[in-house]
Amino acid sequence: MGGGEKRDRGAFGFSNMGFVAVNAVLLSRLLYERGVRYDCSEMHSGGLFFEGEGKECKNEGVHLNTSPSKPPALTSDTHKSSVPSDTVINFDHGDPTLFIPFWRRTGESSTIVIKGWQSMSYFSDIKSVCWFLEPGLADSILQLHHLVGNAETEGRHIVVGTGSSQLFLAAVYALAPRDTKEPISVVGAAPFYSSYQAASDYLRSEVFRWAGDAYAFERERVGGEERPYIELVTSPNNPDGFTREAVVNGSMGKIIYDFAYYWPHYTPITSPADKDIMLFTVSKSTGHAGTRIGWALVKDLEVAKRMTMFIVLNTIGVSKDSQLRAANILRTVISSYERKGGIIMGRGAYENFFKHGHELMSKRWERLRQAVDIHKRFSLPEFPSAFCNFLGRPSSTQPAFAWTKCEGDEIEDCEAFLKSHNILTRGGRSFGWDPKYVRISLLDTDSNFDIFINRISNIN
Amino acid sequence: MGGGEKRDRGAFGFSNMGFVAVNAVLLSRLLYERGVRYDCSEMHSGGLFFEGEGKECKNEGVHLNTSPSKPPALTSDTHKSSVPSDTVINFDHGDPTLFIPFWRRTGESSTIVIKGWQSMSYFSDIKSVCWFLEPGLADSILQLHHLVGNAETEGRHIVVGTGSSQLFLAAVYALAPRDTKEPISVVGAAPFYSSYQAASDYLRSEVFRWAGDAYAFERERVGGEERPYIELVTSPNNPDGFTREAVVNGSMGKIIYDFAYYWPHYTPITSPADKDIMLFTVSKSTGHAGTRIGWALVKDLEVAKRMTMFIVLNTIGVSKDSQLRAANILRTVISSYERKGGIIMGRGAYENFFKHGHELMSKRWERLRQAVDIHKRFSLPEFPSAFCNFLGRPSSTQPAFAWTKCEGDEIEDCEAFLKSHNILTRGGRSFGWDPKYVRISLLDTDSNFDIFINRISNIN
Repeated sequence: MGGGEKRDRGAFGFSNMGFVAVNAVLLSRLLYERGVRYDCSEMHSGGLFFEGEGKECKNEGVHLNTSPSKPPALTSDTHKSSVPSDTVINFDHGDPTLFIPFWRRTGESSTIVIKGWQSMSYFSDIKSVCWFLEPGLADSILQLHHLVGNAETEGRHIVVGTGSSQLFLAAVYALAPRDTKEPISVVGAAPFYSSYQAASDYLRSEVFRWAGDAYAFERERVGGEERPYIELVTSPNNPDGFTREAVVNGSMGKIIYDFAYYWPHYTPITSPADKDIMLFTVSKSTGHAGTRIGWALVKDLEVAKRMTMFIVLNTIGVSKDSQLRAANILRTVISSYERKGGIIMGRGAYENFFKHGHELMSKRWERLRQAVDIHKRFSLPEFPSAFCNFLGRPSSTQPAFAWTKCEGDEIEDCEAFLKSHNILTRGGRSFGWDPKYVRISLLDTDSNFDIFINRISNIN
Repeated sequence: MGGGEKRDRGAFGFSNMGFVAVNAVLLSRLLYERGVRYDCSEMHSGGLFFEGEGKECKNEGVHLNTSPSKPPALTSDTHKSSVPSDTVINFDHGDPTLFIPFWRRTGESSTIVIKGWQSMSYFSDIKSVCWFLEPGLADSILQLHHLVGNAETEGRHIVVGTGSSQLFLAAVYALAPRDTKEPISVVGAAPFYSSYQAASDYLRSEVFRWAGDAYAFERERVGGEERPYIELVTSPNNPDGFTREAVVNGSMGKIIYDFAYYWPHYTPITSPADKDIMLFTVSKSTGHAGTRIGWALVKDLEVAKRMTMFIVLNTIGVSKDSQLRAANILRTVISSYERKGGIIMGRGAYENFFKHGHELMSKRWERLRQAVDIHKRFSLPEFPSAFCNFLGRPSSTQPAFAWTKCEGDEIEDCEAFLKSHNILTRGGRSFGWDPKYVRISLLDTDSNFDIFINRISNIN
């Protein structure tokens, strides 16, 4: 079921207009869906379920002007058996709340204190190409990649963004030719990340334009010369979790690699990625989505400058507070490991984030495969195992999302089918694929995941 | 010299292409100018001046995993007399570092502590139209407007943005028609904020397009009907500080009000602004530019939804950490005041931000006017005084920027003239105006302002 699989394009080869409509629905649903179960932080001992206007979801645990205090006790899971079957659970989005209990246990080591007078300036380091990048974050990023071994950092410029979504737009902008009226084509091999098209096209830019599935992309020639294009390669891929390479392979192609999921808890780290433009984010690496911090490792100075310029025009830089916090979160991860004779070891007294994350994802995939196996109404991708250099042993691929197919001829629309069982997922169409497929987030809270497994097990 | 002044358009009525070129130069300078004096936080007791590769400018004062500690002592100002005359000072950008000493004195009341497990989710409050808006920030925004009396909040939706620059784009996107191929015209009365054009046009959107000076805008008719347009009204205006209203007054106009400077330290608060779309930002209200938090008060629900959708497509929400911090900063301001018999009073034990800010700006304008008066090489705008409801007394306008004219026929380009005296400013052309004018930031540190006044006083 990887990108190379043969597909009947007639069944799901939608026009651009079709995609726009689908994405508008998707966004509107993401924004305004009501009556869903949403558990902000697993903190709430009651009132988890709501209908109608939705549930208030405050960050009640934030303490101001105080020393770090004892974290609140975990909610007991005894309420689970009483979850009504008509309560909707939302596994459409990849909100990484499963990592909250881990970070709660880290206590003060991951806490940040910012004084009222700090980080007031627009500027962080005017020596840096990306002058709004906090030097402490740059240091932590380099150290983390060095520890994990998932990316070459030598000779790269770091550009920080408000999440990797802003960096994706910045990179497309930076790579687009400046001197043509015709927008550059942006493609990705289907199934591709559902936001790429909407993010590329919502401003109807004459600089770049989404051109759909990279497999279907026909390279254009103008005056005997091939026209430039941009290919997005998400590896491991969102939604399906497979490792990927570029597929168009034209002479004028520029490639943006989205490595949001190239971390040891999701996939074996087989070698350091060594590409011209590589995107990462704390949303999926450590689970801090609310912090909105992503970074790009960029080889070419001019591209890094253009990306920086995009971010200045778009948001005049990136939150300093979140950069400082992200730096501290990364340092907490880094400091729980040490190298002994070239081997990466966890420090005894600390819990190791990637080890914990790997175990979490392993268990979730194991439970999901068991549940799916009962009635065989669904199928899941099978992944090869590989040696993970970071873990120092063979490891399986266990993606953040389960790219799931509804089996049997009677179900044409898997998303609608699961919705009828009060499970919200994102259907194949949003990814340029067959509606018999859905993407299911495996990053939600333990209690929601339990409900999900229970429901899936009982669908006959 | 207000927006209504007669001008010789031939001298500075540049074409759109000309503007793009100017803005590219401006941006490139903002990004990569070297050899400028830059004092990050007034913390550094030495090494303030540099040439060549620029100076490292770290947020050295940020403390992690510690209780709030004693702020470092202020740098002595004894070094001033030794500043070499060839050291460049950069008053081009409006970096609000003059407020750092105030916030240093607030100590723990403005300090925020964020634990590693908090604010990890994309979501803040799914009951809100803007579901990534932190409820605590929404509360603080409402309380602050209620205290200051500068905006009606009744019946408004709050949309939070990564600074007001993102909100400006979100608002333009939200107001643009969805069903036409032709981009909607976006105009502002010259002199207009220098970033509006670049921010509107860098993606060459078919949704909206910068159409220049609102005074020169000719409303179009299609099939007997007037075409919609968007007018940006910045009041008080950046660069000139004057209070403004819309000037086009067409039947199909939609207006975005940028009230970034409608705060008591810059201008008298004469009545609560009561417009359909109003933009504010902490960058200029409290001086926390690095936090990148702005907000919009929006009357129409559909417009608020579209703005939210823009921000989701652009950056999937706004940093939670900065929202929490901004909420705490606003609370610190609010809690230093109390109402007694309908009158707003400062609480005895606290320093009041707006009172302090007002005094700071008053002193700076007084010194600037005195310096300019010596040789009369420059002229400054004159502002009417008005009763400020917040201060409870007549108050003068004392803008964040000094919109300064080089007098005399021999100086055509005031920016170049000041640059020859090692003072970087932003020339009139960037604002759609005469190059005999420059915008000078009055928000820099005390020590840089002293150097500036000294230099200006000595230009004969």
